Amino acid sequence: MSLDGFVAGTNISPQLPMGENGMRLHDWIFARKTDADGRIIEELMKGCGAVIIGRHTYDVAIDGGWGGASPFPVPAIIISTTVPEKQVDGFRFIKGVADAVKMAKEIAAEKNIWVMGGANIAQQFIHAGLIDEMQINLAPILLGKGVKLFGDNCPFTDLEGIEIIETPAAVHIKYKVKRLNDT
Amino acid sequence: MSLDGFVAGTNISPQLPMGENGMRLHDWIFARKTDADGRIIEELMKGCGAVIIGRHTYDVAIDGGWGGASPFPVPAIIISTTVPEKQVDGFRFIKGVADAVKMAKEIAAEKNIWVMGGANIAQQFIHAGLIDEMQINLAPILLGKGVKLFGDNCPFTDLEGIEIIETPAAVHIKYKVKRLNDT
Repeated sequence: MSLDGFVAGTNISPQLPMGENGMRLHDWIFARKTDADGRIIEELMKGCGAVIIGRHTYDVAIDGGWGGASPFPVPAIIISTTVPEKQVDGFRFIKGVADAVKMAKEIAAEKNIWVMGGANIAQQFIHAGLIDEMQINLAPILLGKGVKLFGDNCPFTDLEGIEIIETPAAVHIKYKVKRLNDT
Repeated sequence: MSLDGFVAGTNISPQLPMGENGMRLHDWIFARKTDADGRIIEELMKGCGAVIIGRHTYDVAIDGGWGGASPFPVPAIIISTTVPEKQVDGFRFIKGVADAVKMAKEIAAEKNIWVMGGANIAQQFIHAGLIDEMQINLAPILLGKGVKLFGDNCPFTDLEGIEIIETPAAVHIKYKVKRLNDT
């Protein structure tokens, strides 16, 4: 996320999956990746038993960023009202957040479920009170326009910072979501 | 700033200067202040030769939060098209950003000029390219609604994190603004 709240730029397409200037949000994964940045991703993957992703993100990434195959070592569940004609190993398609969570829990068992995004899916999970932890990778840019992670109408949510790791291209903050404390 | 970008809640008034739930943004200054939080403010004040503030912030704070007197050890310049009838020591009123900056530079000499806010003034300074450093005190909450620090149309801005201090009620990040790097 940029400091001004964007997780992608404008004009997203398979050719420009992060939108205009959006790759700067991922400098910590690519252009300016350090060992510490790499460990963030390794830890995330290691603890994870299933991934949940929105259909729009899938469509933008599958043939571009993901090169036609799943980049995830565990099953990825795509929330979608339709199933694409071309099936790709590692992905399952299901309608709606509730069924996706049910399937993910069965697959992940005691491991974490990673809600990867995009923003629309993340917001649905936040509004439904389904998020236990948030990993925010805060990129040192103001992007100015694009796709907001939180939108403008999140429910009031009390968080607790439980881990912070600073690298040249991001401040990585892991938050625990504390429920129903809206004093 | 809340993690979702707000620096005040809704329904701001002299009785509720930070808006609804907005005091939670300042837990690090009041309810949950630690020595490390205190040092953030001390350092800010120590380096500062003049303060610039918007008129709306002045009107909301002067008789409430500030108890009728300037809380600043240095002159505070209020950007305003009018001058209030009741004068308060320590405040000067001037029209527009350019004249405020000129006055502040004369007063501060080699010391820093602190653009305190509110958000409207901060955005005017960002759009004019007048900010050298940003001190973001990131509160661990999603506020959901209120006044956004950056709005939705900041110019693309490249930042560099130069100091980070973690306390229970905030992640304090000081950014240096790097100009005109919009690759």
